[in-house]
Amino acid sequence: MPLAPPRLAAPGALLTDLYQLTMLQGYVERDMRDTAVFEFFARRLPARRNFYLAAGLEQALDYLETLRFEQAELDWLSGLGLFRPAFLDYLAGLRFTGEVQAMAEGTPFFADEPILRVVAPLPEAQLVESRLINLLHFQTLIASKAARVALAAPGKRLVDFGLRRAHGAEAGLLAARAGYLAGFHATATVLAGAQFGIPLAGTMAHSFVLAHAGETEAFEHFARSLPESVVLLIDTYDTEAAARKVVELAPRLAAAGIRVQGVRLDSGDLGAHARRVRAILDGGGLNGTTVFASGNLDEYSIRKLVGEGAPIDGFGVGTRLDTSSDAPALDCAYKLQEYAGQPRRKRSEGKATWPGRKQVWRRYDAAGHCCGDSLMLEGEAGEGEALIRPVMRDGRRLAPSPSLDAVREYTRRQLDTLPPALRGLEPAPGYPVTVSEALRALAATADRLVGRG
Amino acid sequence: MPLAPPRLAAPGALLTDLYQLTMLQGYVERDMRDTAVFEFFARRLPARRNFYLAAGLEQALDYLETLRFEQAELDWLSGLGLFRPAFLDYLAGLRFTGEVQAMAEGTPFFADEPILRVVAPLPEAQLVESRLINLLHFQTLIASKAARVALAAPGKRLVDFGLRRAHGAEAGLLAARAGYLAGFHATATVLAGAQFGIPLAGTMAHSFVLAHAGETEAFEHFARSLPESVVLLIDTYDTEAAARKVVELAPRLAAAGIRVQGVRLDSGDLGAHARRVRAILDGGGLNGTTVFASGNLDEYSIRKLVGEGAPIDGFGVGTRLDTSSDAPALDCAYKLQEYAGQPRRKRSEGKATWPGRKQVWRRYDAAGHCCGDSLMLEGEAGEGEALIRPVMRDGRRLAPSPSLDAVREYTRRQLDTLPPALRGLEPAPGYPVTVSEALRALAATADRLVGRG
Repeated sequence: MPLAPPRLAAPGALLTDLYQLTMLQGYVERDMRDTAVFEFFARRLPARRNFYLAAGLEQALDYLETLRFEQAELDWLSGLGLFRPAFLDYLAGLRFTGEVQAMAEGTPFFADEPILRVVAPLPEAQLVESRLINLLHFQTLIASKAARVALAAPGKRLVDFGLRRAHGAEAGLLAARAGYLAGFHATATVLAGAQFGIPLAGTMAHSFVLAHAGETEAFEHFARSLPESVVLLIDTYDTEAAARKVVELAPRLAAAGIRVQGVRLDSGDLGAHARRVRAILDGGGLNGTTVFASGNLDEYSIRKLVGEGAPIDGFGVGTRLDTSSDAPALDCAYKLQEYAGQPRRKRSEGKATWPGRKQVWRRYDAAGHCCGDSLMLEGEAGEGEALIRPVMRDGRRLAPSPSLDAVREYTRRQLDTLPPALRGLEPAPGYPVTVSEALRALAATADRLVGRG
Repeated sequence: MPLAPPRLAAPGALLTDLYQLTMLQGYVERDMRDTAVFEFFARRLPARRNFYLAAGLEQALDYLETLRFEQAELDWLSGLGLFRPAFLDYLAGLRFTGEVQAMAEGTPFFADEPILRVVAPLPEAQLVESRLINLLHFQTLIASKAARVALAAPGKRLVDFGLRRAHGAEAGLLAARAGYLAGFHATATVLAGAQFGIPLAGTMAHSFVLAHAGETEAFEHFARSLPESVVLLIDTYDTEAAARKVVELAPRLAAAGIRVQGVRLDSGDLGAHARRVRAILDGGGLNGTTVFASGNLDEYSIRKLVGEGAPIDGFGVGTRLDTSSDAPALDCAYKLQEYAGQPRRKRSEGKATWPGRKQVWRRYDAAGHCCGDSLMLEGEAGEGEALIRPVMRDGRRLAPSPSLDAVREYTRRQLDTLPPALRGLEPAPGYPVTVSEALRALAATADRLVGRG
């Protein structure tokens, strides 16, 4: 029962870089409105990452469908003294009328492979650059990180705890979405539950324990208040002592029909505490009570705990997920590939790009693992599966978006297609991506076309 | 001329963690509404950082003043099946009615020093934890990073370019604010100009050049379209060749009364390019044309360029500022310090905190540099300046907030008080922060009070 359609409060058309607007004025005044083709892609993978996971398309399409300048925004722009009345009139009527082709959310991808293409009159395709990158970059960043956590913790329950150290409100919401998409089971962020339908989870805070005279009193109070979901935080003072208090309390609660569902550890050596706490719980007959752990966790610390067999049933992952702390940004770009039918590419040092409209073809081996991609021109016949598909025409989605649960299931199946080396946390040999002859030839053509002025 | 009062679109009361609401139900049903004292502080500084810079108070106070649950939000919560009608009625009437004491935005601070204290009935003080941390953490994170960039580039123009790789919309907006506060001169993010009155700046993108048949045509078109602000991007194909095209073009523009204000470099060895471009511009009589650089810059690369005397007049800083890429999160917390008149603290391993209501006293030496802080109990007479001051009572600000420009000027003077070693980029010996005897005694008392249950 979402509050509203699963859309973020739109920050509006002014959420862009100033140069988009000044360039647009130039385009519009010269009537440079021919068709432009831009593609969004990421360059080299961050250290220790083996794949990207595409995410954010849903919000990107929402943005394109609803893009418009409100009168108050135009009035404010007018006051800057940079924009002429005819251009402001143009902005007043501006809507996104173009096409979008994209990779489905939840598809793994690699360096230089586009995941979204915009085909639209140049001013429209240019204006949307800043926000499209902002949306696609962040969710792809977090989904790519979350997938690693999920792959490191098969069978464990994973909950996003990251709102408080996410970078602002939207980061908290979109990280919850990207995490769920990539395999997390729930989030603590209430608004993410309301907006995206993500299952919510939560335990209790240290402050709840501290506000009571003692732990047992706090535990009993919490359990009676929320009998549906009794997960007790036991590390406020002394973890094992608190576990024994839980064992002592359990019969009293059971008499009231209340079951202690779980305990949470949040500090110290989580593996050692988990083993001792498990023994205390089992010794007290609480074999069904689960152990949940949190506290600065990431895919490495979780893999270590899982690998050493720590009796932990689930993990809360916060800061290191929601900020992608080992790689808080991706080297990605949204670049002009074609204008008025001519291929384009920049040759800036270290930043040259492949021009034209591209398709990514993916091949699979007999085991169902992907074994190589080809970056080709749209229209070339490749081998395997073509990953870039039409999703928007005339500024409207071609079909209703899949539900987030459907995307999550698709993602799970997609991650299953990764070869085992890419699914691990250690850097794997680079996944083979070849570039077609036709694309290389087009790049040479693009280079010949420029520099004449 | 801001669009509206400088407030971010409020994400609403549901932007919180589920456990805040479930704990609140427990507090309210047991009538645990005595006064609680929570403080926000950060623990150990990130590697290579010498100070934190307080920021985000303005948005935190906005949040507290406007906090309320709308009926649609309550209806949605009701559908979760976790909350009882009497509690939802309580939420419908909930407003923040408490007090806040805080350090002014732009004040440097150190580990374990609180920058904000909430004194309010327990449910109110608890509920606001998630969003208060979310707001104070992020802006403090970015302001602390931006101050380092500003200190590394005295006299240089600094522009925030980070929207596209900031973590969502709010991150882009608040990073622009935090950067400006800490010494940046402008931002490229239009909405940050509209909401916060930050000066806007921008040049042109590679796509503008690529959309034209040649660079000279693109430069001339741009200059005639935006004669107020002609900054030309010259690295799309060959940087020095483009600089020569600028020199050739300049007389034709001058004849039309248009001056080439600057050029921008965005790739390659920025120092080497800047020297060659400067020589080409000077040789062509464009001595007044400035050189602006961008491209994966941070305080270290900027210090290096400044140190080697690269003829660069200003820097655009994007990803590494808006994500604080070397330290994308701070180890910060909002902790219960007192409830119903009794001091509280947790003793979780590695996470013990100082209880009670605290004041930070700062001493200055004869040169006007701060030389030591004392963490004391509120009411103790310290030496120097008391940094924590009342800002809100009965849920309302005690005075209108200072303008962002006033905060920026205060920040500049505050950074001047830092001893030279702390102003550098290299790790300095720890700044001395002492803990008063009375505070130590209170911590011992708090420890004796607990664990009885």
